[in-house]
Amino acid sequence: MHGSFDALWSDLLDVGRDATSGGYRRFTGTAAELTCREWFIAQAGARGLDIETDRNGNQWAWHAPDAPGRAIVTGSHLDSVPDGGAYDGPLGVIAAFAAFDELVARDALPAGPFAVVAFVEEEGARFGVPCLGSRLLTGALDADAVRGRRDGDGVDVATAWSALGVPAAGLGPDPERLARIGVYLELHVEQGRGLVHSGHPIGVAGGLRPHGRWRLSFRGAPDHAGTTALVDRFDPMLTFARCVLEAREAAAQHDAVATVGRVRVLPNATNVIPSAVEAWLDARADAEASVHAVVAEVAARAAANAAIDGVTLDVVEESFSPAVRFDVGLAGRLAARLGGAPVLDSGAGHDAGILAAAGVPTAMLFVRNPSGVSHAPAEHADRDDCLAGVTALADCIAELAP
Amino acid sequence: MHGSFDALWSDLLDVGRDATSGGYRRFTGTAAELTCREWFIAQAGARGLDIETDRNGNQWAWHAPDAPGRAIVTGSHLDSVPDGGAYDGPLGVIAAFAAFDELVARDALPAGPFAVVAFVEEEGARFGVPCLGSRLLTGALDADAVRGRRDGDGVDVATAWSALGVPAAGLGPDPERLARIGVYLELHVEQGRGLVHSGHPIGVAGGLRPHGRWRLSFRGAPDHAGTTALVDRFDPMLTFARCVLEAREAAAQHDAVATVGRVRVLPNATNVIPSAVEAWLDARADAEASVHAVVAEVAARAAANAAIDGVTLDVVEESFSPAVRFDVGLAGRLAARLGGAPVLDSGAGHDAGILAAAGVPTAMLFVRNPSGVSHAPAEHADRDDCLAGVTALADCIAELAP
Repeated sequence: MHGSFDALWSDLLDVGRDATSGGYRRFTGTAAELTCREWFIAQAGARGLDIETDRNGNQWAWHAPDAPGRAIVTGSHLDSVPDGGAYDGPLGVIAAFAAFDELVARDALPAGPFAVVAFVEEEGARFGVPCLGSRLLTGALDADAVRGRRDGDGVDVATAWSALGVPAAGLGPDPERLARIGVYLELHVEQGRGLVHSGHPIGVAGGLRPHGRWRLSFRGAPDHAGTTALVDRFDPMLTFARCVLEAREAAAQHDAVATVGRVRVLPNATNVIPSAVEAWLDARADAEASVHAVVAEVAARAAANAAIDGVTLDVVEESFSPAVRFDVGLAGRLAARLGGAPVLDSGAGHDAGILAAAGVPTAMLFVRNPSGVSHAPAEHADRDDCLAGVTALADCIAELAP
Repeated sequence: MHGSFDALWSDLLDVGRDATSGGYRRFTGTAAELTCREWFIAQAGARGLDIETDRNGNQWAWHAPDAPGRAIVTGSHLDSVPDGGAYDGPLGVIAAFAAFDELVARDALPAGPFAVVAFVEEEGARFGVPCLGSRLLTGALDADAVRGRRDGDGVDVATAWSALGVPAAGLGPDPERLARIGVYLELHVEQGRGLVHSGHPIGVAGGLRPHGRWRLSFRGAPDHAGTTALVDRFDPMLTFARCVLEAREAAAQHDAVATVGRVRVLPNATNVIPSAVEAWLDARADAEASVHAVVAEVAARAAANAAIDGVTLDVVEESFSPAVRFDVGLAGRLAARLGGAPVLDSGAGHDAGILAAAGVPTAMLFVRNPSGVSHAPAEHADRDDCLAGVTALADCIAELAP
């Protein structure tokens, strides 16, 4: 069965990889992401699975779709953050196909419906909202609001989704499809070192920490960098810089993490005082109250600084994901089946969290990550651990099959 | 003669103007800048002037090039900063053609050689070094170093200059051309409110303040924004943010100005701790020692902070322009000819400063700017003041003609 995993893995290894950074750039509707989608269709076809692209652009590959009962569904996503790693997303889809192959070899395929899924725009790298495909599926996002979004180049969702062959007019909740899912399993590289510390290659998710994204827009007055006295400036870069440092302080105070990883400066010229600085704040904590406290504190201090600097401030919540507790019974059953795998929480968001919040019985498996690094080229999992993940996923599917 | 100015002005008004910001984006070798260059050739042709593009891409329009004596040259540049104003650059070229028309109408053209010039890449918006065309002409820049530069998209100088029809192999000093210039006059919108305070529409430049650009590269370690504990981060955004605030402090302390107007974040994703932040520091003061003190202090404090944050720092001087004192006798003579125009210093850099540093007798005229704003869409000069500038430029040419 190792050949199955290795072939699946090597197929995707070079798709959308940047030669300079070594990281991946697989953004929804771009050539690299479309290549990944074609790969999904080819793999489904090679296994005799029925292929569907749903109204939101998520891809499904079905075995026995018309068999009685609700489906066991497993998968993840194929898109990446800018310069992301090879594992976050693709490992879960590859493992799903490889686990299918392992169940075929064991002659242990579920009798009921089974599907491999690849959710679209999980990272939100192009349109700013993570888990876009699963949130549209469950109705957690308003389809009109999604249709109104534009990427960093001003391209709208309709144009991007047309490259997927999916009309934007059809975006929206898909309750019948959701009702077909009896259980959703997502295998994912761990984004931390919990499994390193516990000494296990595979873990089961207990829950996901609450998290969200806020866009802070600081607007000042553009002017000449050489001829404008310091006292005559309305420089949003200064207000922004204070905000970065205050976000760190607030996070430390509230036992949270806060990150400013994305910035847009206008007009972004060396000899021009900026007219505007837009910054995205990512905040997460164990408790939702802590996340809200961090954001409230950052926004209040930024507003006060903006008033002093003669700058205006807008704060917009781009997404918020409440805490997710996965089905405790299901997690325990799978952990036991895997011979006592540890149960860990994660600070990352996942489509599994969106489905769990919509009432779908959901579980996640994590594969050990030696450095804990994720969303970066150094993200890694050893091949042996990935293979253990495939076997664990096949075991879990067999455990859950009626 | 007003018709001449108005026609010249309206020709360029919409070229490269961004519909959203209202500012101009005329970067070397782009469609908008090439349209400006074609306009220059058409205007020269319409006046029977001989057109030359020199080895560095600067454009020249000659009257009586073969007459004895050295030339009176006047002009400015046609490129812009991102979202720049309509006046910075084009006003000096338009005024040069309009002053030529006024001298024709007065039947007072110089008997000796006369040229209108448009220097290429004055703003440095595409390749990072301001006054690139005039610095190449005088030999102030090493041509090989220029050929090695790339724009923000990784495009090299050779590719950009090929759009101008200028082979990059020929870039470099042009001493014969430089020796032909007997005097250089540049008319420019004032980038400050000195003339507003003095109540004059036109002023004469005394000198240019020293200034420069430094690139600070902060490199950390990319990782997941949600799963990486604060203490495990090597986040260059924090070090950068402190640097922005310290640059402001250092500038205030040394009676200088310092600006961070351009920033590049890698990979620039909401849910990724940045791998690197590059920032450009623009620093200027009355005294060169003050500029160097600001930059040394900013670099030292940034290095100390980088060490604390586990981030590396590189500081590269991208350009430095020493203080320029224009020819005092020439400035006084022109000020007198203009009926006692005030003599003012400027905090901006200009091609005139590069030529003056190379030993060319050089003077500048400034046109009043009601708000003082420059490098921004709000940059403005009243039409009457622009027309007064044209007449003053014609008067100065007549004053200097043998």
